[in-house]
Amino acid sequence: MVSGPSMRGLCLLGALMSSPLVNAQEQPLLYLMPVPASVQIGTGRLLVDSKFSVASTGYTEPRLDRALERFLLRLSRQTAIPLSRKTGNSSKASLVIHTDHASKEIQELGEDESYLLEVTATGAKLSAVTPLGTLHGLETFLQLVEVSPDGFAAPAVTINDKPRFPWRGLMIDSARHFVPLDVLKRNIDGLEAVKMNVFHWHLSENQGFRVESKKFPKLHEGGSDGLYYTQEEVHDLIEYARERGIRVVPEFDVPGHSTAWFVGYPELASGPGPYEIERKWGVFDPAFDPTNERTYKFLDQFIAEMAKLFPDHFFHVGGDEVNGKQWDTNAKIQEFIKAHGLKNNQGLQSYFNKRLEPIVSKHGKSMVGWDEVLDPALPKDIVIQSWRGPDSLAAAAKQGFRGILSNGYYLDLGWSAARHYAVDPLSGAAANLAPEEKARILGGESCMWAEYINPENIDSRIWPRNAAIAERLWSPPEVTDPASMHTRMEALADRLEWLGLTHKSYHRQMLQRIAGPSTPEEFVALTTLASLVEPVKDYTREETATAEPTSATPLNRVVDAVPLESATARHFAELVGKFLAASCHDPAADARLRAQLTAWRENDAKLQPLAQRSFLVKEVSATSRDLSTLAAVGLLALDFVTKGQRPPEDWKAQQLAVLEQIQKPKGQLLLMPTPAIQKLVEAASAGGTCSSSS
Amino acid sequence: MVSGPSMRGLCLLGALMSSPLVNAQEQPLLYLMPVPASVQIGTGRLLVDSKFSVASTGYTEPRLDRALERFLLRLSRQTAIPLSRKTGNSSKASLVIHTDHASKEIQELGEDESYLLEVTATGAKLSAVTPLGTLHGLETFLQLVEVSPDGFAAPAVTINDKPRFPWRGLMIDSARHFVPLDVLKRNIDGLEAVKMNVFHWHLSENQGFRVESKKFPKLHEGGSDGLYYTQEEVHDLIEYARERGIRVVPEFDVPGHSTAWFVGYPELASGPGPYEIERKWGVFDPAFDPTNERTYKFLDQFIAEMAKLFPDHFFHVGGDEVNGKQWDTNAKIQEFIKAHGLKNNQGLQSYFNKRLEPIVSKHGKSMVGWDEVLDPALPKDIVIQSWRGPDSLAAAAKQGFRGILSNGYYLDLGWSAARHYAVDPLSGAAANLAPEEKARILGGESCMWAEYINPENIDSRIWPRNAAIAERLWSPPEVTDPASMHTRMEALADRLEWLGLTHKSYHRQMLQRIAGPSTPEEFVALTTLASLVEPVKDYTREETATAEPTSATPLNRVVDAVPLESATARHFAELVGKFLAASCHDPAADARLRAQLTAWRENDAKLQPLAQRSFLVKEVSATSRDLSTLAAVGLLALDFVTKGQRPPEDWKAQQLAVLEQIQKPKGQLLLMPTPAIQKLVEAASAGGTCSSSS
Repeated sequence: MVSGPSMRGLCLLGALMSSPLVNAQEQPLLYLMPVPASVQIGTGRLLVDSKFSVASTGYTEPRLDRALERFLLRLSRQTAIPLSRKTGNSSKASLVIHTDHASKEIQELGEDESYLLEVTATGAKLSAVTPLGTLHGLETFLQLVEVSPDGFAAPAVTINDKPRFPWRGLMIDSARHFVPLDVLKRNIDGLEAVKMNVFHWHLSENQGFRVESKKFPKLHEGGSDGLYYTQEEVHDLIEYARERGIRVVPEFDVPGHSTAWFVGYPELASGPGPYEIERKWGVFDPAFDPTNERTYKFLDQFIAEMAKLFPDHFFHVGGDEVNGKQWDTNAKIQEFIKAHGLKNNQGLQSYFNKRLEPIVSKHGKSMVGWDEVLDPALPKDIVIQSWRGPDSLAAAAKQGFRGILSNGYYLDLGWSAARHYAVDPLSGAAANLAPEEKARILGGESCMWAEYINPENIDSRIWPRNAAIAERLWSPPEVTDPASMHTRMEALADRLEWLGLTHKSYHRQMLQRIAGPSTPEEFVALTTLASLVEPVKDYTREETATAEPTSATPLNRVVDAVPLESATARHFAELVGKFLAASCHDPAADARLRAQLTAWRENDAKLQPLAQRSFLVKEVSATSRDLSTLAAVGLLALDFVTKGQRPPEDWKAQQLAVLEQIQKPKGQLLLMPTPAIQKLVEAASAGGTCSSSS
Repeated sequence: MVSGPSMRGLCLLGALMSSPLVNAQEQPLLYLMPVPASVQIGTGRLLVDSKFSVASTGYTEPRLDRALERFLLRLSRQTAIPLSRKTGNSSKASLVIHTDHASKEIQELGEDESYLLEVTATGAKLSAVTPLGTLHGLETFLQLVEVSPDGFAAPAVTINDKPRFPWRGLMIDSARHFVPLDVLKRNIDGLEAVKMNVFHWHLSENQGFRVESKKFPKLHEGGSDGLYYTQEEVHDLIEYARERGIRVVPEFDVPGHSTAWFVGYPELASGPGPYEIERKWGVFDPAFDPTNERTYKFLDQFIAEMAKLFPDHFFHVGGDEVNGKQWDTNAKIQEFIKAHGLKNNQGLQSYFNKRLEPIVSKHGKSMVGWDEVLDPALPKDIVIQSWRGPDSLAAAAKQGFRGILSNGYYLDLGWSAARHYAVDPLSGAAANLAPEEKARILGGESCMWAEYINPENIDSRIWPRNAAIAERLWSPPEVTDPASMHTRMEALADRLEWLGLTHKSYHRQMLQRIAGPSTPEEFVALTTLASLVEPVKDYTREETATAEPTSATPLNRVVDAVPLESATARHFAELVGKFLAASCHDPAADARLRAQLTAWRENDAKLQPLAQRSFLVKEVSATSRDLSTLAAVGLLALDFVTKGQRPPEDWKAQQLAVLEQIQKPKGQLLLMPTPAIQKLVEAASAGGTCSSSS
């Protein structure tokens, strides 16, 4: 039962489950994420028991040895079977690994990351050109191992895999809120699991300067509240990432986003000091003075130090969101603009970048910057990271610049995984680029901006949605089915917790804090409500705040505790959709909808005692009442629908008015089942013709 | 609203909730565990917000400074409010700490651990004689802080507290299964939270020798599979415990339980070698040769080394369960017994102990041993740890020996918290001892034997039940209400996870592994079943095993994943009890019972698809079917009861026969709601007289 090449990259869960060719009893389902470039399914499965062994042939290095140790440890965690490295005849090992040759000492963009993984009922073989491919293949093997009727096992399969894009990254802003090293490490483990290969480390901001500088110690002493990474820790993290086939690209944002630099070095700013670390969020005025030679001398020495500390070939200088206010109010700077014929502040920033780029280059690095740094006059060696969008990226590519996409991949905006998943670096204007222009689009990076994260909830803001972006950047472009993606992502989400990520387990603990001591029934009521809400999207959290948030604001509210995507609401919407599509004639679906809606309607009464005792529950009281109202509307609609009765004339308008009120955010939360209930109301209003709404 | 001295030690949750004098809206509920010696409740509460500060006066030392840092960190975790140490006027701090003087450099048995904690709406004061009391008081303060209608707060209260017993310990067997250092540390954090003050470290066994010996390196090299603690790690752990007011008592078990020693040093054994690390469980034959002078020379040098490594005054030599088989079959040893008039093997072990005690004593330690070491000829300085029971302990006390109770506190037997809670070191024969004899009973130790634990589930085998034992050993003897204990223990269980303990969070991850990728409905079905079963009790796991378990047996089954006490089954039994007590006339209780039983009856159908896919779910298929049957019986009984109908003649016998089958363990699991269903059946059979069963 070997599938043909037509199943390339798509012969996974979604396709399998809906294919009439597949016998679900005999055919293993594959929960691979990202989907490999090519998969052929074989017969049988390879058991993983306490005799499981692994051996390597060909090129080897200490990193590979350690990778095998980690692999066994993780396989052992995943199965709870004690496993350890066995010596002996390597050709008889359960999994034999062959690596052709070394990868670059300092990992480079575009190295060979391909691998071939062949699993049969009697053994498995993993071959790769470089250790980077070997690392990826080991991850795929781990994803294949699953509980089966006979024990833990990997299905027989042949996987020929390589990435679509060479730059697949995650940016973490560790400046607005400091992110401890162990939190970064577990997220790097996550990156390895989904085959991302860049960790972009946003290290300076108005709210913090996070790296020890030996040359300019007042940077971290003045700019960090003592929350910074020592150079030893930076080195440790880079090593940790390298072990996992991940490059570390540092970002030091200039000339804006730079208040924290000026606490220790006010003479570099364009306005008079003194400066304090910024505690609020937003775009602020302080910016480097591009007209002062001291600025370039400082940056030269600083970049010299950091270029040594961070071995990667790319060096990110930020360059975004300079509001120009300090430049406007500084007469000397305005004079400079005129004297040099720079037209305006934008011209001044171009001037700054043209001065900065040779410095970065002198220290052996290629400069990376956000959209704003784009200037035809800069050398084509630089890389544009686009927060503005694919058009901006395509324009850069046309001009000969390389680019990476981040627009559409901002994890902090609270988008659904499916929405991120639909964003393709080669879509929009980029779809029409010439092949050599397309090749300049190196990939993309998801971005975790840090206004509302702390070590407790950061994982839940990154995972599992980041896996959807990782798949977009790795898998063939025709892998786009969101249903398959969601099913695999939910399975992966469970597995990622084995790595120490806490994106699932954090939730209960935060709710526990919010509830305080409570009866099981009360706590279930809170859990139920929490499972149906999402934080407000995009940048509306600022807009809807009752008090201006700062970096000292406790992140202990329901809005901080709930996942950014409600799986329960999504499943409910699917159920409603299927029910309506089946002409409302599926009694089992009807019963399930009714049971769910009844439970929701009664939830508020159970939650109220908690709201009396906890200010954090009280904050969601209105949303809880809304849930009851919403469920009551849904039950009414369901009654009309199943009885085939047409509701009174003005009923629909009344219900929609109620839903409109419910749809307004409260406590910075959105009640997610509302659109599905609206569909029920509309189906009910359509009378006996509910099947037409499918 | 200050309560009088009559509420001493009991004015906590249980008492408060049932007291008509208390206004639940105004009166804070206290979730303290262990219950303090004396509590007086005041008016109002002290808010804990980002301005919260702490200062210390009187005696100070680095350990206290670090304790305050940890305190703030934990308060910060508990509330998610960023808090850091502020300098300034100490008298204005929110919490002012005063410590009189230092405790002993090496913590001693019986030091002053008392403290006085006064909280008002405007500030809190903690006073203690020594840092040990200060540490305890900080824990009490953390337990007082809870979410309130206005924010996080501690209620106004005056607590005057001290322990009932001076020796309150937990033993962890890190020999049968190795327990990594970080797992021990988080459990020591747990001990601090419940005011236990001894960590008894069981370090050698037939299955492993776990400490690096520089003098006799073949001990750990041959006896540990590489899984041992370096001396540096031991030192680190002792320091870690000392920081938390906890003594570390090492145990090296001789002359039995000692196979792992003989792998490297077979010449010390009573039988011919060679020896291998034992992989199975049970009592084994190898024992030291008490007739060979080499044994004493070796132990002298070994204890000299370990006495330096472990600073505590007490040194545990085990001494339990010598089966004597090696002695029986060694002619030289039998000759020695005759030549020295020792009667039998027991006499030989007495001889051994009489030789061993002076060695321990010479190295500055008091010897501790299990019951078997008791011998009137030994000096009164030794301490007897009783696994046999209170009578054995009382007998020792009568002879002038000090003792600690562990019988009744074996955590691995799977007893309920309430059953452990009811065991008092001064009960049974000990209750009738003279005061000076009673004083020799120093306290007790819970014991975590390690046949069926690993880093993943060990916390769940210790916590939260260990808190009930901790309370027994700390709180006044009249604190005995199991309902109050359970309510407070459940609240504490949630808080303990803030320390990094995983006794709650491990569960979902293990079930996830057991289930594999699954639909939400399937996973809920597994969770529901898992919430209603408990592992078989006492030592029946061995007896009911289908294959002989070893140290390499994966601990990945449902029996390994479920808590040792089913809270859901306990709550269900309470509900049944209340329903029957109210003459079956409470319609709300009826509805809840009916809903729960209906869900259980339908659970098996939802679980079956998982059982098809996972061998680990398949193992509990029979139990799952039993649950459906059990629930069906319960629903039938409920119908008879609520309708006041008497069932047919032979109905009761039929149902009891069904229940008898269900009560038999399957997959080494017990289905816990069975006794409550039996009560329903009996009430139904009694016809309209169901109220009489209350």
